[in-house]
Amino acid sequence: MTDAAPGKVYLVGSGPGDPDLLTVKAKRLLEEADVVLHDKLPGPEIIGMIPEEQREDVGKRAGGEWTPQEYTNARLVELAEEGNTVVRLKGGDSMVFGRGGEELAHLAENGIPVEIVPGITSAIAGPEAAGIPVTHRDYTSSVSFVTGHEDPTKDESAVDWDALAATGGTLVVLMGVGKLPQYTDALREAGMDPDTPVALVERATWPDQQVATGTLDTIVSVRDEAGIEPPAITVIGEVAGERERVVEFLEGY
Amino acid sequence: MTDAAPGKVYLVGSGPGDPDLLTVKAKRLLEEADVVLHDKLPGPEIIGMIPEEQREDVGKRAGGEWTPQEYTNARLVELAEEGNTVVRLKGGDSMVFGRGGEELAHLAENGIPVEIVPGITSAIAGPEAAGIPVTHRDYTSSVSFVTGHEDPTKDESAVDWDALAATGGTLVVLMGVGKLPQYTDALREAGMDPDTPVALVERATWPDQQVATGTLDTIVSVRDEAGIEPPAITVIGEVAGERERVVEFLEGY
Repeated sequence: MTDAAPGKVYLVGSGPGDPDLLTVKAKRLLEEADVVLHDKLPGPEIIGMIPEEQREDVGKRAGGEWTPQEYTNARLVELAEEGNTVVRLKGGDSMVFGRGGEELAHLAENGIPVEIVPGITSAIAGPEAAGIPVTHRDYTSSVSFVTGHEDPTKDESAVDWDALAATGGTLVVLMGVGKLPQYTDALREAGMDPDTPVALVERATWPDQQVATGTLDTIVSVRDEAGIEPPAITVIGEVAGERERVVEFLEGY
Repeated sequence: MTDAAPGKVYLVGSGPGDPDLLTVKAKRLLEEADVVLHDKLPGPEIIGMIPEEQREDVGKRAGGEWTPQEYTNARLVELAEEGNTVVRLKGGDSMVFGRGGEELAHLAENGIPVEIVPGITSAIAGPEAAGIPVTHRDYTSSVSFVTGHEDPTKDESAVDWDALAATGGTLVVLMGVGKLPQYTDALREAGMDPDTPVALVERATWPDQQVATGTLDTIVSVRDEAGIEPPAITVIGEVAGERERVVEFLEGY
């Protein structure tokens, strides 16, 4: 540790991938930061905006291994202690299934000034890019975001699909392409109507965005036929049926 | 209706209030639009960025009455049919308890090209401005957003607080200052631990932001002592306790 005052770390969400959906603040910070630590999720267009000499990729490392969270935590502290202005850039919002909370706590424990800069989460922008509002007065008084990709060290699912089904609200599953058969089964077993509309949005707002729609009963085969792959979000609920009503006049993506 | 091709309507979220948290796209559209229809929720700083001759306030009208949704729907169609580029600006994100879904459907039914521009929802940015991540690997696999301000024409609460409590995830209540006693009671009756941390964030990211923290048991008196008033969000769950760990080094708001 040097004697100088520490720099500062900004925990920044990049939004779903379209550079136009960066916040004004995130865009400015990417231009001004001494170092940007990122993985692949912000997407090639946004990562391409950062000068190469200022980037550090903390996603996959040599050999294809994921960088352990402990490495990223320690690197953030080290760079700040050297006096740098550091941006930790995550896809979407860093506090929505992004482990930003762990980085925040680690930085504070080490006395590093830290600021959170929210980003547009794909859990909201993904449905919207497909013409789907996550809430609607006619159908739902709540929306729940849940991860389809849990901590692999946990023995069983910590997600209570029975309770989520019972809310009667919209469900949005992030990182939920692979386990789609498991949780659509769980929701049917919990009594959710098998005709409930479901939509999959792959690479929301990216130039190669794909949307596929079906029902709780059909969505697994829809996924397979359409070739939907990660990263994608799943929207489950009556709101997913709104796409059909509006798609003819929907512009944007 | 004129013979000219219709203009286009952008349903734009303004974010929580800090102009720096507008998206790059929203900022550009506010500069370029022929007309911006807004209410008070985007906040004075953002509304002040729009040239006065381009603004139409569709919040409260003369006499203090709320503008009916039907008026706003019809006005959007009318302005677009005259060939205008129209921005419908909402606080937060227009599809998160913002009635954007109704406007979207109405525009599509009338053959008006429409695009959704997501905004940062205060349901995520509000907690973050207070140092609270809405999800955290150690505590929760889901987060649910719910409105505390339901359609007053509904006879009883459509929100299933029992089911929301049973999810075990973070709950964020929007527009939930007034009914705080009712739903904290409902959550305790549903078996939620009365010591569960709760935080209130008023006017998140505005210059006069206020944060107050307590537990499910104490938060109503905390609200009264701190004088928390709408607009505010309520965060309920273990994550709300993270503020205390980080607040000393938290910068931004």
